[in-house]
Amino acid sequence: MALAEQLARNEGGIASVVAILGERFGARLSVSGAVREQHGHTTTWIENQPPDAVVFAESTEEVADVVKICAEHGVPVIAFGAGSSLEGHLNAPCGGISIDLSGMNKILAVHAEDLDCVVQPGVTRKQLNEHLRDTGLFFPIDPGADASLGGMASTRASGTNAVRYGTMKDNVLSLEAVMPDGSVIRTAQRAKKSSAGYDLTRLLVGAEGTLGVITELTLRLQGIPEGISAAVCSFPDVEAACNTVIATIQHGIPVARIELLDTLQMRASNAYSKLDYPEAPTLFVEFHGTQAGVAEQAELFGEIAAEFGGGSFAWTSREEERARLWQARHDAYWAATALRPGARAFATDACVPISRLADCVRETMEDIAELGLIAPIVGHVGDGNFHVSALIDIDDPAELAKARELAGRISARAIAMDGTCTGEHGIGQGKQAYLERELGGAVEVMRAVKRAIDPQNIMNPGKIMRL
Amino acid sequence: MALAEQLARNEGGIASVVAILGERFGARLSVSGAVREQHGHTTTWIENQPPDAVVFAESTEEVADVVKICAEHGVPVIAFGAGSSLEGHLNAPCGGISIDLSGMNKILAVHAEDLDCVVQPGVTRKQLNEHLRDTGLFFPIDPGADASLGGMASTRASGTNAVRYGTMKDNVLSLEAVMPDGSVIRTAQRAKKSSAGYDLTRLLVGAEGTLGVITELTLRLQGIPEGISAAVCSFPDVEAACNTVIATIQHGIPVARIELLDTLQMRASNAYSKLDYPEAPTLFVEFHGTQAGVAEQAELFGEIAAEFGGGSFAWTSREEERARLWQARHDAYWAATALRPGARAFATDACVPISRLADCVRETMEDIAELGLIAPIVGHVGDGNFHVSALIDIDDPAELAKARELAGRISARAIAMDGTCTGEHGIGQGKQAYLERELGGAVEVMRAVKRAIDPQNIMNPGKIMRL
Repeated sequence: MALAEQLARNEGGIASVVAILGERFGARLSVSGAVREQHGHTTTWIENQPPDAVVFAESTEEVADVVKICAEHGVPVIAFGAGSSLEGHLNAPCGGISIDLSGMNKILAVHAEDLDCVVQPGVTRKQLNEHLRDTGLFFPIDPGADASLGGMASTRASGTNAVRYGTMKDNVLSLEAVMPDGSVIRTAQRAKKSSAGYDLTRLLVGAEGTLGVITELTLRLQGIPEGISAAVCSFPDVEAACNTVIATIQHGIPVARIELLDTLQMRASNAYSKLDYPEAPTLFVEFHGTQAGVAEQAELFGEIAAEFGGGSFAWTSREEERARLWQARHDAYWAATALRPGARAFATDACVPISRLADCVRETMEDIAELGLIAPIVGHVGDGNFHVSALIDIDDPAELAKARELAGRISARAIAMDGTCTGEHGIGQGKQAYLERELGGAVEVMRAVKRAIDPQNIMNPGKIMRL
Repeated sequence: MALAEQLARNEGGIASVVAILGERFGARLSVSGAVREQHGHTTTWIENQPPDAVVFAESTEEVADVVKICAEHGVPVIAFGAGSSLEGHLNAPCGGISIDLSGMNKILAVHAEDLDCVVQPGVTRKQLNEHLRDTGLFFPIDPGADASLGGMASTRASGTNAVRYGTMKDNVLSLEAVMPDGSVIRTAQRAKKSSAGYDLTRLLVGAEGTLGVITELTLRLQGIPEGISAAVCSFPDVEAACNTVIATIQHGIPVARIELLDTLQMRASNAYSKLDYPEAPTLFVEFHGTQAGVAEQAELFGEIAAEFGGGSFAWTSREEERARLWQARHDAYWAATALRPGARAFATDACVPISRLADCVRETMEDIAELGLIAPIVGHVGDGNFHVSALIDIDDPAELAKARELAGRISARAIAMDGTCTGEHGIGQGKQAYLERELGGAVEVMRAVKRAIDPQNIMNPGKIMRL
């Protein structure tokens, strides 16, 4: 299907659907410009393409009804959680209906005895962890933003804890989803493992809403470790920091978080979060385990860091100090954008085999210098994943072109190193050319799956790949 | 499609394909009755349905050629690794060509620095671990049998180490596969995580060869732990053993293996493996970590076991003693069948949320007693997964009916407890009715995926579900 055809707006169908949904949902259907714009892409340089209307759904049945009505009229459906995705996932290039799931925010069950829970898709990760506080359990996936769990599943999100606890793919046990014909399926039972047929759970995780709308998630939980200890350690250069990470992973130290911030990001974070760390490439690390285990891990890590010239650092197991440290890490994006007021961040998302990490970051820094961009680097480096945030005036075509050039080089470099153009943000609208480059013929198989499950192409059309 | 239609043999096409493959492969094509029978199902009560011919393939290109030729003539293709699957996966109910991949047994690369390796599908898990011995790394998935890694991926196998290291779904980074049209795809790059499009890796893992033939696997490796310690502990009854497991998991002790053997199985194993353990419900456990970490875990476990009446037990970190212990566990299947010479084992594979494990095992034992079967129980109980091996004379319809009744009750019970009829063996031919019962409408989505990727239904037809 040509792009033009794929992107054709179904004006008549959309008008009918908006009228029908207005009858059905009353004030819970909005066509206001502000609401529509807020439900398109709002986080990066990608142009906002608002949906035609937004429905605020409150149950699986309502989602199924909306999807059925849209299916009857061939109108696109875009699921919306917290709006924190970074690759244009929420945009409506063909128009259509945004289903806002933020009101489906109930925690339906916590099976503490089985280390799992069942939640609606609008529950956010912070909300879930707040709810779990008294159970001794936590949900480990932490992409930084207080994203919705449905959205995190849809982009196969990960973040700072993934090096220890895996990504959303590893932490979703089962999903309930509304499929493109309005039917409701459950992908798996609650058992911890299964060989019962195709892994539809993992097919929907990372499908970016193009195969169905997730309406319920069964998630694995972890026990809050007895011991947690965190530290900040600075290095003479980024390569030394990367090499410390590589050695830490290769030694099998079960680090829970290991985050890189380059000199520019440290300058930004010191200013934004009122810290006074050395302005040098820095690792933020955290260990989880028993008290003895954490002490052992910290000691081993300290020895490795020292070998690579890591500066002295203080360990802390005090919760408030740890919270302050990770708040600074979570605010890195805002700290970065504050480096250049009025600028937007153009975020990249390369992930490479860990042995190539130092090379990939070094060559990327050379690109940044050559292109003359202001572009701090942060990364979930234990997984070989790092982000560059190029701070640009998106209204300046020359700057946008430079940022695109940088992003292109980074994606191509990651792919050439047997890595991926996206470790955790997804393909969305922004990375489709790189998906083809990365996986070639496999994309044709993805298309076959998409066409089979969503023959009308109403589920978040225009994302991941052209059909 | 009706079963009859699905199962129709394409006699003319098969004859043509056998002739073409004979020209192409010479002595590496076999139509001998013994070879064909050996490439059908041979491990359990399920009737052997041999393929029409067996090709011994030596490269991806050869597999692609065979698939293309079969596709042109609408002839089924069944991938064969080590022949150790348990649900009839290798049978050829519609005839067709078995592609024996055991000759594709090269370890293509070990990236020790990235903790991964690349292997051909005929490499067995023992072969891989033998090869890795000097690297300090190992591949953790251990289903008992020395299965091929391609086969283990195809059934989403797991086994004794899964409680700590996950299943094949968690340990395959990327696959190369020949698709039903003969095209060759790679599902992912070698990066540790990715959000690049649909997760075709996890779609092929567990697809039982119904979507494509796996021709190469990139696998995650683990560092061999500094400390390993193992023990055997007996309990007054199965419930006490199960409750010990539940408490161990709930306390977050990162046990590497925790296996249940019931009294009958212990009697069988003592006899077969020349051991003298108490003939009582028993847990075999193993801990991995640093020396200090392992000691800490063992102590905690000991306290829990004692609370539930666990007998005294001795820890060993001596490798030969550990090897002897796990050899006995691995030989449990053969030990069980030796309980009744001439009998075949009818193996079940329930997996339930851990909180339901004791109930599920207890009710199952009541069924075994009521039906008057000889049926020892072993289980990967840390995951809530256990196997009953009903020892029956498969030529006696009354005995077979009783075993089927038992298996049906166990599957239904597991499903009712929010578990699965198959934790690790797969659906194959044997569990299709239970897949429908377990996942309902989701099976229709699986069918849509199957039809889209394999419209001719030539890839291992008659498995997982009727079309």
